[in-house]
Amino acid sequence: MKKATFYHAGCPVCVEAERAVADALDPAVFEVEHVHLGEARGRIGEAERAGVKSVPALVIDGAAFHINYGASLADVKG
Amino acid sequence: MKKATFYHAGCPVCVEAERAVADALDPAVFEVEHVHLGEARGRIGEAERAGVKSVPALVIDGAAFHINYGASLADVKG
Repeated sequence: MKKATFYHAGCPVCVEAERAVADALDPAVFEVEHVHLGEARGRIGEAERAGVKSVPALVIDGAAFHINYGASLADVKG
Repeated sequence: MKKATFYHAGCPVCVEAERAVADALDPAVFEVEHVHLGEARGRIGEAERAGVKSVPALVIDGAAFHINYGASLADVKG
């Protein structure tokens, strides 16, 4: 299984991307972890190191894919 | 099957998003069409109507999801 991590902050844009894209990945290939950065603040650093600049974002094989724009990581850090 | 349309312009950001995200959608659920807007210019209007502002973008169930940023649709129109 490949690992995919969906980072979000519970925002409406995040929820839409989660349903339409993150939940649409092939379950035979991907194990998708959903991380709410507003709640799991200790994982913000990990997201930043993967190149995440805003949420919602999907990290697949170490590469960050920003899906539309909900909030910047700076806003999530608040 | 649900229909997903991946709009791109052959740019490096597009190719990366195509491999990592568009090709990762569950093939049991989605029929994914790949549209190169630089070549299929007659489909730019359709992409615009779906809300696509830049490529690469994935349209799922009529909603546009921009994945990172390769080029604006205005640039693709040239």
